[in-house]
Amino acid sequence: FFIDILDKEEALSTLSITVVGASGDLAKKKIFPALFALYYEDCLPKNFIVFGYARSKLTDEELRNIISTTLTCRIDKRENCKDKMEQFLKRCFYHSGEYNSEENFAELDSKLKKKEAGKLSNRLFYLSIPPNIFVDVVRCASMKASSAYGWTRVIVEKPFGRDSESSAELTRCLKKYLTEDQIFRIDHYLGKELVENLSVLRFSNLIFEPLWSRNYIRNVQFIFSEDFGTEGRGGYFDNYGIIRDIMQNHLLQILALFAMETPVSLDAEDVRNEKVKVLRSMKPLELEDVIIGQYKGHNKGGRAYPGYTDDSTVPKNSITPTFAAAALFINNARWDGVPFLMKAGKALHRKRAEIRVQFRHVPGNLYKRNFGTDLDKATNELVLRVQPDEAIYLKINNKVPGLGMRLDRSDLNLLYRARYPTEIPDAYERLLLDAIAGERRLFIRSDELDAAWSLFTPLLKELEAKKIAPELYPYGSRGPVGAHYLAAKYNVRWGDLGGEDD
Amino acid sequence: FFIDILDKEEALSTLSITVVGASGDLAKKKIFPALFALYYEDCLPKNFIVFGYARSKLTDEELRNIISTTLTCRIDKRENCKDKMEQFLKRCFYHSGEYNSEENFAELDSKLKKKEAGKLSNRLFYLSIPPNIFVDVVRCASMKASSAYGWTRVIVEKPFGRDSESSAELTRCLKKYLTEDQIFRIDHYLGKELVENLSVLRFSNLIFEPLWSRNYIRNVQFIFSEDFGTEGRGGYFDNYGIIRDIMQNHLLQILALFAMETPVSLDAEDVRNEKVKVLRSMKPLELEDVIIGQYKGHNKGGRAYPGYTDDSTVPKNSITPTFAAAALFINNARWDGVPFLMKAGKALHRKRAEIRVQFRHVPGNLYKRNFGTDLDKATNELVLRVQPDEAIYLKINNKVPGLGMRLDRSDLNLLYRARYPTEIPDAYERLLLDAIAGERRLFIRSDELDAAWSLFTPLLKELEAKKIAPELYPYGSRGPVGAHYLAAKYNVRWGDLGGEDD
Amino acid sequence: FFIDILDKEEALSTLSITVVGASGDLAKKKIFPALFALYYEDCLPKNFIVFGYARSKLTDEELRNIISTTLTCRIDKRENCKDKMEQFLKRCFYHSGEYNSEENFAELDSKLKKKEAGKLSNRLFYLSIPPNIFVDVVRCASMKASSAYGWTRVIVEKPFGRDSESSAELTRCLKKYLTEDQIFRIDHYLGKELVENLSVLRFSNLIFEPLWSRNYIRNVQFIFSEDFGTEGRGGYFDNYGIIRDIMQNHLLQILALFAMETPVSLDAEDVRNEKVKVLRSMKPLELEDVIIGQYKGHNKGGRAYPGYTDDSTVPKNSITPTFAAAALFINNARWDGVPFLMKAGKALHRKRAEIRVQFRHVPGNLYKRNFGTDLDKATNELVLRVQPDEAIYLKINNKVPGLGMRLDRSDLNLLYRARYPTEIPDAYERLLLDAIAGERRLFIRSDELDAAWSLFTPLLKELEAKKIAPELYPYGSRGPVGAHYLAAKYNVRWGDLGGEDD
Amino acid sequence: FFIDILDKEEALSTLSITVVGASGDLAKKKIFPALFALYYEDCLPKNFIVFGYARSKLTDEELRNIISTTLTCRIDKRENCKDKMEQFLKRCFYHSGEYNSEENFAELDSKLKKKEAGKLSNRLFYLSIPPNIFVDVVRCASMKASSAYGWTRVIVEKPFGRDSESSAELTRCLKKYLTEDQIFRIDHYLGKELVENLSVLRFSNLIFEPLWSRNYIRNVQFIFSEDFGTEGRGGYFDNYGIIRDIMQNHLLQILALFAMETPVSLDAEDVRNEKVKVLRSMKPLELEDVIIGQYKGHNKGGRAYPGYTDDSTVPKNSITPTFAAAALFINNARWDGVPFLMKAGKALHRKRAEIRVQFRHVPGNLYKRNFGTDLDKATNELVLRVQPDEAIYLKINNKVPGLGMRLDRSDLNLLYRARYPTEIPDAYERLLLDAIAGERRLFIRSDELDAAWSLFTPLLKELEAKKIAPELYPYGSRGPVGAHYLAAKYNVRWGDLGGEDD
Repeated sequence: FFIDILDKEEALSTLSITVVGASGDLAKKKIFPALFALYYEDCLPKNFIVFGYARSKLTDEELRNIISTTLTCRIDKRENCKDKMEQFLKRCFYHSGEYNSEENFAELDSKLKKKEAGKLSNRLFYLSIPPNIFVDVVRCASMKASSAYGWTRVIVEKPFGRDSESSAELTRCLKKYLTEDQIFRIDHYLGKELVENLSVLRFSNLIFEPLWSRNYIRNVQFIFSEDFGTEGRGGYFDNYGIIRDIMQNHLLQILALFAMETPVSLDAEDVRNEKVKVLRSMKPLELEDVIIGQYKGHNKGGRAYPGYTDDSTVPKNSITPTFAAAALFINNARWDGVPFLMKAGKALHRKRAEIRVQFRHVPGNLYKRNFGTDLDKATNELVLRVQPDEAIYLKINNKVPGLGMRLDRSDLNLLYRARYPTEIPDAYERLLLDAIAGERRLFIRSDELDAAWSLFTPLLKELEAKKIAPELYPYGSRGPVGAHYLAAKYNVRWGDLGGEDD
Repeated sequence: FFIDILDKEEALSTLSITVVGASGDLAKKKIFPALFALYYEDCLPKNFIVFGYARSKLTDEELRNIISTTLTCRIDKRENCKDKMEQFLKRCFYHSGEYNSEENFAELDSKLKKKEAGKLSNRLFYLSIPPNIFVDVVRCASMKASSAYGWTRVIVEKPFGRDSESSAELTRCLKKYLTEDQIFRIDHYLGKELVENLSVLRFSNLIFEPLWSRNYIRNVQFIFSEDFGTEGRGGYFDNYGIIRDIMQNHLLQILALFAMETPVSLDAEDVRNEKVKVLRSMKPLELEDVIIGQYKGHNKGGRAYPGYTDDSTVPKNSITPTFAAAALFINNARWDGVPFLMKAGKALHRKRAEIRVQFRHVPGNLYKRNFGTDLDKATNELVLRVQPDEAIYLKINNKVPGLGMRLDRSDLNLLYRARYPTEIPDAYERLLLDAIAGERRLFIRSDELDAAWSLFTPLLKELEAKKIAPELYPYGSRGPVGAHYLAAKYNVRWGDLGGEDD
Repeated sequence: FFIDILDKEEALSTLSITVVGASGDLAKKKIFPALFALYYEDCLPKNFIVFGYARSKLTDEELRNIISTTLTCRIDKRENCKDKMEQFLKRCFYHSGEYNSEENFAELDSKLKKKEAGKLSNRLFYLSIPPNIFVDVVRCASMKASSAYGWTRVIVEKPFGRDSESSAELTRCLKKYLTEDQIFRIDHYLGKELVENLSVLRFSNLIFEPLWSRNYIRNVQFIFSEDFGTEGRGGYFDNYGIIRDIMQNHLLQILALFAMETPVSLDAEDVRNEKVKVLRSMKPLELEDVIIGQYKGHNKGGRAYPGYTDDSTVPKNSITPTFAAAALFINNARWDGVPFLMKAGKALHRKRAEIRVQFRHVPGNLYKRNFGTDLDKATNELVLRVQPDEAIYLKINNKVPGLGMRLDRSDLNLLYRARYPTEIPDAYERLLLDAIAGERRLFIRSDELDAAWSLFTPLLKELEAKKIAPELYPYGSRGPVGAHYLAAKYNVRWGDLGGEDD
Repeated sequence: FFIDILDKEEALSTLSITVVGASGDLAKKKIFPALFALYYEDCLPKNFIVFGYARSKLTDEELRNIISTTLTCRIDKRENCKDKMEQFLKRCFYHSGEYNSEENFAELDSKLKKKEAGKLSNRLFYLSIPPNIFVDVVRCASMKASSAYGWTRVIVEKPFGRDSESSAELTRCLKKYLTEDQIFRIDHYLGKELVENLSVLRFSNLIFEPLWSRNYIRNVQFIFSEDFGTEGRGGYFDNYGIIRDIMQNHLLQILALFAMETPVSLDAEDVRNEKVKVLRSMKPLELEDVIIGQYKGHNKGGRAYPGYTDDSTVPKNSITPTFAAAALFINNARWDGVPFLMKAGKALHRKRAEIRVQFRHVPGNLYKRNFGTDLDKATNELVLRVQPDEAIYLKINNKVPGLGMRLDRSDLNLLYRARYPTEIPDAYERLLLDAIAGERRLFIRSDELDAAWSLFTPLLKELEAKKIAPELYPYGSRGPVGAHYLAAKYNVRWGDLGGEDD
């Protein structure tokens, strides 16, 4: 619908998107391609321009050359792709400047004004830069390159601090120059199709909501595993570790969406209110409910896989976790006593991102003797898989066709690729589009961020204060065995480690 | 497990199966092939013989020739099929006799005794004969050909009377010669995989039971349609009509299994107790909740399809319904107010047998505006399909992948053929095996039969007394429009008539 | 309604009630007074007579003198009481005979016939005699004194055997002379108002049924305590013990009514079917889930209370339990995992008979900190009290009025005496009336009895085989401490032992 | 707990309470007595003073004389009452001034400062004045008499505007001088014991929450009736009418507390967030769901009761409603389709303030035939009564003791007066104490007020624009018959108009 609104305004207004840190990896691989995809799909307003901003000295043409290598067209509709690309690149410009130079941003402002040609101007800054210069850029951009009449918005990427204090400090500094409304904290996981679909599933299907509570759900698992390590780029990571990198944001955000109460509407504030509520109902993480690990070198199939500390950008004695598992609890009426398990790791045997909902055993089950010994195998499970490919499946018990009464577990499944053959848009497309439209639902509000940090900060501090050493696990393995013990402590079995191809 | 028990006994005992009415169609097409399949699968005891009994004068060899034409091996394991067939046929014999001749049955008894060779003998009689001679055969078989030491059981096929009185009379007569334990009233629909699976689904999956009530289920539909008419064999049918032929037994039995309370165990008596309970909780059918139809001739694609009364075996002025739809209600705490709709018909546009469970609308649905105008399309639906091929699917609402928030309905599905590539056994195999094993769960007890008739008898009598004319519908159509009005009266839309391929 | 039916028949029919064992205590204290009360209330048919039968030689007049001393009128309507009593006594007669003499019963038959004066005669025999002569009396009465045209019914009192075998044998013997329809096994506890009301509460109030399951109920307690011992009449008791005397019948019957599924109707067979179902779903009792005790002598307030073995009718070394507590479990979907605790004992500190339903803790309770330390005190509890006076109360948490937020637990209560000032009829009245009307709901069917015994028999045999000694507890105390440990094992606290006057 | 905090601070700080409009009725009858009661109960800080402020010229002593007439001690603890009163009065002072004079407030400030004697000063202004001077007083007090170091808070009483616009304007003006945190909008109904208890009941008792939804609740009624009219003081009322006076604030606030979702904590912001959520989920009121009435003169028992327009302070042709009934709906998952009925009126036959929760019929009720014809009488009902005396009762169905099976409805009840014999504090005491402690839970936040007005404003405007005439009803009657039709339209029967003393 917002496209309609833009329609009316667009003759009279312009949109300028400034990618600060334009020469970085993320900008090249994700942001420019996403902008092009939106352009290709006609989702950008009629008058728009894209500015790259960075310290390198480049001409507009050089920028265009660089980004043109990463633009792609949807596999399923390639027509006019070449033309479209050229038109898009014509709207891309570059301005070189220091990140803390108000003067350089003032120059940018002049250029923007010229392009805007007196129309109502809306300006979006995408900060694809290291966190230590966030505030500088925000200060300069806000003071020297804000739109005089239209809106000015700033997208920032994680990390949003290292703990409660640094995050609060960052927020405080940002708010010196920006209102809450202008800050768009991006978590690209929230832009994934299945994450969006999570609320649709819960709230538009009668059959899920009655089951969505401690009465029926035994545990919920949030699993994120990568099948590669830091691979020579561990410098940034080593400063944060897997808990800050994946758990405290991506997985916790998804948990909040999963577990929140029904919002009063789908408006951003209403959804974010509910997310904050559920985060505030959670018990702060304790050391005994967390397992950390770090991968070590491993030879397999004649090939040597390096350990984390073999990465030259990582200190030799680093105890930064590359794997973590945690058990969390929500102290409210819906979830009291249900373990929410999280697991995130690098250099594991499989690439996987999914939510697994394990249901309780059937009380007084008539069919118990028909299942054999492993009753855990006989409970229902709902899996929402984001990676490797998006899918939903519901494990149910079935009679095996044939004479006699033998039961097994089958899947009621929905494979997105099969059902929806069109290409699924990248998360960055959705999020950029939302930021342009002022739709804040998928961005993280300051109080959400506070609540998230307050769950993890005591743990993170204790880990660091006590210099707790991670359990080593071989590159390409299933991770540290401690994760199993942690799960077992709460009567949980990790759903992604079953014998079958679960 | 019963196979184990048979193992121990089998050296010392024999089983003889007498197919009374051996020259009929059902015997040839279903019973002998099912017996062979059981033999092929090693499900019959070591010592067994099969006797055909009918009025025609045949030799053993002639019988073998006749039935050999209909025996088949499972598609998926054809090895030794030829050998097995020969061995099976060697155990088949024939005895010619009148159906009401005690003398002839005494002769059969002699032959059986000779084959049994002094072992403990168990005897199963399968009555594949018209209902008017049921009692004669039972009398003769019981008095002259019962097993002296082992058990004697009799399988009877519908029709079990035409109404409460005739059914009660038939039961009374059977019970003069047989105890309840000896009578196996077969409803071959209860032998279908998905019907067996219905209880498994409900009672071994946590996620279904909480939804299985008036709080969540809006209506349930039991649909049976054939895409052909009586095709020259309408003589028997005309005397009964579709209500007696399909609804009062097949569909009502499935309804009872669907709606019953959890039985205390899976034992036959416990399951049948619950079925009787639910039947007794039902409101007797009233004329205003029933629509009847009869197909008429129709030309389509250059081909002429005959009407029902064009069948030469059917009286020209017959008002026997070939189609019926009905709305039933169960006055108990679980189902109060939920319409259970049934629909059965011949010469319709599609072959279909299925249960459709339509769930309620989501209360206060957040996503209402995302569905467009047709909210009924947006409710969950669980479909258990028996024909054309066995499948389970659950319709859920999903976000259509892509930018924007558009919802549609997708299927979480389980297609048996894909998941279980082995051939699904015919219903008769299961039922014969159960009768041999003394497992009564899938057979209909006298009090069940009484309860079933008492629901339908007042209606049937009123239809006949008032000579109510059926609504005519063209051969190959979707049936009389009255069925829609009946459904609409209870805010129901038939699930099998959607625009999509539902 | 049955009174209406009796109205029509009564001019033409007679009812004769023969109290066999007329000189016994129960007969005098309960049966004759109950018959008089029914007469007083106009609940007996117009033509009725009462016969006493026993071995003592008495005249009609002597019987009348004896029973006249125990007849009373309702406190609240004493008018004409004297007249009514005289009229009632005129209809009472006596016949002296041996309990195993067919001849004596034939004499009774003659007398009955004479009084019946050719009318249709219905005959009810109330067997108020020791169990060892049950079968003799039934044989004689059935063979020589059955009604030729009307019905003949026999009421028997517990004990119905000592274990599964003896009970089955008794049933087998009774059934030689009587059909199931003729046997009325009385459990006078089932005639209590609150026991009758239990089903009314559950099934006619919307608010209870949703709470009536493992999801909300933490445990259920069935408590029966007497504040006196055997007091010189322990001879009969010593042979049975408290488990057989109270638990296996009274408490188990009430448990079955409490826990059963909704019956399809209130008809006797439907209710009893459900009771059998729930009994069959129970786990047989094991030794480790039972505590037994025996009271010992105790001096209190200057008075000496005798121990059980001080009773001269009890063997000195008796290990018969006078107290027992047990934990039972129902393995069905509704009750899986919920402890059902029973406790019965003599010579305890208080007379008490009640059902206590303890509900679960509120999940994620907002008010936890407002309750202080003892959370168990803060859960809801429903109490159905039969003795000392009938009452229902529901413990709920409330804000204590006043400034500040302090919670406490108050009762929503219904005291029968206050609400219904009329006198509550004795259980025997209801049961006799039901037996006369042929209403079997409150009588115990053979299969119920079998199911009940099969739960307790293994335990009883083990107790006796291992000669397990009961824990001694002082007369007038709260019973053995083992009962607390048993409860604590399942996280239960006995509701009748709270500090307050619960 | 705040008392503890105050303890520590109190030696160093003072509290001054200025009652603006001190000569008014409310001040005399409610505010000064409530302050005294708090003092008597030791709930006020050690150093406190009370100032009266009004236009009349009074000395301190004159004020003390006036208010001394209305102070009372708790009935149950009268000791030292006289002493306490004197000590309290010594702390009361008076300052005469215009409401819009900054100068006069500056004088007040000087006096306050003198009394505060250099301690940390907290100042509470209670605005007991007409709405048209709210803003003036707030401006003067805020600018000239705010505390320099401690807090300054202002309590305002309704009316908060006449509609969305005027309310928003008032809020805007207040916020020029005060932050949200400083504004305490009082609704004295929220200070009632039973209103406080409403949340306790719901959230600290397991048994209520499962029933608290559309699945079990048929309708909810909020009833407020007075047995007297305006009695010569209708001037103010006539400008507002009953909808603004009672419904839009008192009843709607209680509805919101009743229907809100579980808050994440009991903190003021969390509770008020939930109240706003539920208000925002409501359907704006439409004319067709509202009935208005006005009382007319009536002679009864020889006495003449005047009509509303007989009140000399009311315009003769006034069409201001003195009675209104309305049906409201909440479009969320919990309450979809459940009618929430409100009824408020003056000059009715009874004084009554209560919430009535009517539960649904039992589905498939076994006992239907035992209830007679009026099934509505047989549903459960929970009544929370505020006036005439505070009580909770739950109507349940019961077997009437006696032979036969007759059911009736009894009350499980809790009468506060009986259970808690101490006097219940007045609502003003609680609210004043909360305002002093900074506890905002029971005060209305700006967004709540907005949401409340947006529900009622369209209706109020339509009523006025169309000059809709109220239905006349006699003084002392049960109100206009239209209220019954309105209820009947949604299948509701008013619970307060049953035959029995409900």
